[in-house]
Amino acid sequence: MTTEPVRRYDPRRRDRIIDACLDVIAEVGVAGTSHRKVAEAADVPLGSMTYHFTGMAELLHEAFTRFAVAFSDRITARLAGAADREAAIATIIEAVEADILSDQRELVLTQELYTLAARDATFRDITNAWMTRSRAALEQHFDPTTARMLDALIEGFTLHRALDNEHQHDADVRTAIARITDTRITDTEIAGETP
Amino acid sequence: MTTEPVRRYDPRRRDRIIDACLDVIAEVGVAGTSHRKVAEAADVPLGSMTYHFTGMAELLHEAFTRFAVAFSDRITARLAGAADREAAIATIIEAVEADILSDQRELVLTQELYTLAARDATFRDITNAWMTRSRAALEQHFDPTTARMLDALIEGFTLHRALDNEHQHDADVRTAIARITDTRITDTEIAGETP
Repeated sequence: MTTEPVRRYDPRRRDRIIDACLDVIAEVGVAGTSHRKVAEAADVPLGSMTYHFTGMAELLHEAFTRFAVAFSDRITARLAGAADREAAIATIIEAVEADILSDQRELVLTQELYTLAARDATFRDITNAWMTRSRAALEQHFDPTTARMLDALIEGFTLHRALDNEHQHDADVRTAIARITDTRITDTEIAGETP
Repeated sequence: MTTEPVRRYDPRRRDRIIDACLDVIAEVGVAGTSHRKVAEAADVPLGSMTYHFTGMAELLHEAFTRFAVAFSDRITARLAGAADREAAIATIIEAVEADILSDQRELVLTQELYTLAARDATFRDITNAWMTRSRAALEQHFDPTTARMLDALIEGFTLHRALDNEHQHDADVRTAIARITDTRITDTEIAGETP
């Protein structure tokens, strides 16, 4: 009997590489991310990289998609847990004031993705899908127009809070969300008269 | 008579280096920006870099400050030209729908700055000063709370428009700005009752 070389079956290897890729991006940025560094971080042979991924673009796509989906899933679950519109507003306020982008790794990975998508439109399928999921999460409680406006407002507030070095006015978030979710002001009013 | 070596006086050299630094960042990103590349782009000897700047951090600070100030100055001037609140709202809508971040270089430089500030809090003096100027520009027409809310809304909308690959709903911008600038909903109302 001859002994065949054993090929260790490792179904988690591709997954581990994707997770490791996010760690490497968080540490050195997209620009500094290489197959070699990711393979080291995932503790896999360099050859695994080309076996599992057609190239760095596919790996970056998979990694940022995983990051964005995990982010959306968390928000979707929290909004699904809100009993009514009022509870949904409280959930959004809490997320903006305390959670979103307050984690350094999350902030850095978000900005790395945005910079990549700014430079290379082929990555905008990830940011587009992320926005679509965020809006669907908000549509559990708000009409589609209000959901899109809230999505932009949340983005602006969390980004400004993360990149500011001054005291933040929590009341702003509350007032802004109250105004944005106020349906007394409609498109018709805007078309017809001065708001 | 002996001839002293001529030292060519070049008051624009430091300025040119700062401009060249922005060009290099736009092309290869902060991570890829080096003294050597900037010196080449500015057409100055490598020694000029250490003569004019204490290091890459100072150069990046000067470059991104110049970029952000130019950006703010443009918005400030446009809002100063608005005769009244209604004209200011029209100016903001126009800026969001057509101008801000629609230029590829501007989009990339903004995201590069945000990523840098996300990673390194010492660069948040630049993003903080930028927000302060944007809000002051808006305070030409709106109260400080509304100015801060508008600033966040404009950020979110322009970023989402730039990073999306789908048709944008211009009506959203108009409706959102109408709602945010509606002073019928005050902090008092929010504190006292369900909005």
